[in-house]
Amino acid sequence: VETGDERQLASLLEPLHPADVADLLEQIEDRPRADLLDLWKSGFDGEVLSELEENLREEVIDQLTPDALASAVRDLESDDVVDLVEDLGDEQQEAVLDALGAMDRQAVETALAWPEESAGRLMQAETVRAPEHWTVGETIDYLRGEEDLPDQFYHVILIDPRMKPVGYVTLGRLLGSRREVPLRDLIEDSFRIIPAMQDEGEVAYAFNQYHLISAPVVDEDGRLVGVITIDDAMAVLDEEHEEDILRLAGVGEGSLTDRVINTTRQRLPWLAVNLVTAILASLVIAQFEIALQQIVALAVLMPIVASMGGNAGTQSLTVAVRSIATKDLTGSNVWRVIRREVAVGLINGVIFAIVMGIVGVIWFGSPMLGIVIALAMVINMVAAGLAGTVIPVILEKLKVDPALASGAFVTTVTDVVGFFAFLGLAVVLLL
Amino acid sequence: VETGDERQLASLLEPLHPADVADLLEQIEDRPRADLLDLWKSGFDGEVLSELEENLREEVIDQLTPDALASAVRDLESDDVVDLVEDLGDEQQEAVLDALGAMDRQAVETALAWPEESAGRLMQAETVRAPEHWTVGETIDYLRGEEDLPDQFYHVILIDPRMKPVGYVTLGRLLGSRREVPLRDLIEDSFRIIPAMQDEGEVAYAFNQYHLISAPVVDEDGRLVGVITIDDAMAVLDEEHEEDILRLAGVGEGSLTDRVINTTRQRLPWLAVNLVTAILASLVIAQFEIALQQIVALAVLMPIVASMGGNAGTQSLTVAVRSIATKDLTGSNVWRVIRREVAVGLINGVIFAIVMGIVGVIWFGSPMLGIVIALAMVINMVAAGLAGTVIPVILEKLKVDPALASGAFVTTVTDVVGFFAFLGLAVVLLL
Repeated sequence: VETGDERQLASLLEPLHPADVADLLEQIEDRPRADLLDLWKSGFDGEVLSELEENLREEVIDQLTPDALASAVRDLESDDVVDLVEDLGDEQQEAVLDALGAMDRQAVETALAWPEESAGRLMQAETVRAPEHWTVGETIDYLRGEEDLPDQFYHVILIDPRMKPVGYVTLGRLLGSRREVPLRDLIEDSFRIIPAMQDEGEVAYAFNQYHLISAPVVDEDGRLVGVITIDDAMAVLDEEHEEDILRLAGVGEGSLTDRVINTTRQRLPWLAVNLVTAILASLVIAQFEIALQQIVALAVLMPIVASMGGNAGTQSLTVAVRSIATKDLTGSNVWRVIRREVAVGLINGVIFAIVMGIVGVIWFGSPMLGIVIALAMVINMVAAGLAGTVIPVILEKLKVDPALASGAFVTTVTDVVGFFAFLGLAVVLLL
Repeated sequence: VETGDERQLASLLEPLHPADVADLLEQIEDRPRADLLDLWKSGFDGEVLSELEENLREEVIDQLTPDALASAVRDLESDDVVDLVEDLGDEQQEAVLDALGAMDRQAVETALAWPEESAGRLMQAETVRAPEHWTVGETIDYLRGEEDLPDQFYHVILIDPRMKPVGYVTLGRLLGSRREVPLRDLIEDSFRIIPAMQDEGEVAYAFNQYHLISAPVVDEDGRLVGVITIDDAMAVLDEEHEEDILRLAGVGEGSLTDRVINTTRQRLPWLAVNLVTAILASLVIAQFEIALQQIVALAVLMPIVASMGGNAGTQSLTVAVRSIATKDLTGSNVWRVIRREVAVGLINGVIFAIVMGIVGVIWFGSPMLGIVIALAMVINMVAAGLAGTVIPVILEKLKVDPALASGAFVTTVTDVVGFFAFLGLAVVLLL
């Protein structure tokens, strides 16, 4: 790049996969990135745009000339273009759409009419279909005659005269069968129809649960409007997982390429919530000022009880949130799971109560203090198991994402219960 | 089940997908599960076994008669059988292998010879291949003549005379081309070869990064030994994500169907580590006993500083761990990321320092106390950003899974720094 040799740059980037080029662009600093794009403009590949993270994508599109942009997006499949433009500002969206041919433009606009994160957005409009009465031979002849087959397809979808999908045939079975065999005899029983309005998370779940490779998408009238393939579902699954992990940690949807100011803003709300819960816990402590003044050991030991409860709560919580996401935790087994988590909290609580009781005695020479911390530990770990399971389940029922909100509530419970149990018991038993 | 009507049970379960039957078995209690299996034995479907969680799988296999087991596993593909038996005890493994035909048994045993979690374990041995000089017509004729094609395949792999894969052709292009076209002209450039020894996590990453659908697997001599398809890669990706989430929360590899005692044992080590770090933090507090005795407000406020640091640290840590897993955080941008995290910590630290400073003044009427908590907040949140990024990077370099171990270290840093900064500043400025 430094030498400004356009040809050499192109020959360096040429053999790389678009995903790797995108990673490269994400990892270098702003200045060299701009220089690189300046130089490479003419050969810029549309697939690199698809692979870029959203916030960088906008910057890169801004830097491309309309011509370069047009040639970059023209070769993409309609679902990739949709994915590309759906998060862009109006102006940039217009620029990309203008670069498309009329046909493609229409396909993209139709897809954009479906709600965000729906199957309609995820699907590609290009389908490969055949009337249900065709034979293998007729289908192969039709495919050979077709100019513009999608890059990737795995099934031929059988449709009835009203465009309703009635089954599908894998290409493998099509290839392995004689020309005179009717398609109807080759139908797979894995066939599942996806409504275009379905949430993309549900779609990904269905692909994963039923090992689907591709599935037809239908509109409200049951007519075939597109097809979703497993690679799209895999991308959604990957995204949802990522979101869950980041939400559990209170990070929101940040990425490494975000500006400092954006990242700060994303993390602030969670920290603010935590500040409120921490102050709540402090208010509990403040009720026991006299006890703390008389026995300073209480101040030394009290964070241990809260911290152990917080960790145990996070454990229960994470298992519960994941089980809800994978639909393993449902109404029918919720009581069993709660019983189990409470039992686990009780057993671990007793174990650590014994350990901490002994530590308390040795450290401060007071058997009573040992008993106080041991009892508080048991109480708080049982509370942690209970809160860690019940809170996500309730949030789920209230249609709040449990990954996002559970953490704050559970920590509040374990902090408040922890400090209250420890200091309260201390007042009763020690003063 | 209660009425013991075998036929009715079979007709109820028949229309369900094996994955749903497995979910059903996972959700019901032990007693009805045993009754159900007792009754359903004769019709038991091998795919249900594949879908079950590991610990339940062993129980279910124990309950099946050898005959039922044999008929259940006979129809599975070799990779599913491998997946099924690899975690079983020797005795059960033997029982399943005995149930297989000689050919299948050999395929399974060959796969088991590859190391755990390698591409060799993941692949299916059944491949669809063609000599590189064939035409479309020859390939179709061969496929039509072949009795035993795999259930699912997406490419025909071209091999040279020494069995080395040289490219592949999608079935779509095969179907869309005339009989006389040579396969060589249809080769896809997405082609990637996977060594059998490669870690399955790497395989899943490659599928996700390069949007692969299937990829040939080769042995040390570069000869084709199997093929991995996207559904297997998707399952691995799903598993690795799950593992990461659970490890970040210190839960290990538990599942909802585990016994209480197993779950307790899984969570205990993490809680034990946390106890040690919590005691470390308490030791820091103990150094300031005199200060705490004189100003009880310190005891009330100190958990706030530690808790905010802990949360900010978890945020940085989670982003770092995920970025390492997705290969977005590498040697080339590590300094930039560290600078960014420290900057975010600084900005958020200053914001919350102001808030807490004001709270401190209002609550306790002491401007100096407000300054102490504000300064401690800034220091601890910068430390959190630094530790949250540096610790996972170092662990990764030491080949320790950062998802597993970072949490404990980061919390130790934020607790120790938080308490030390707050109480230390209090001694200097207030006493």
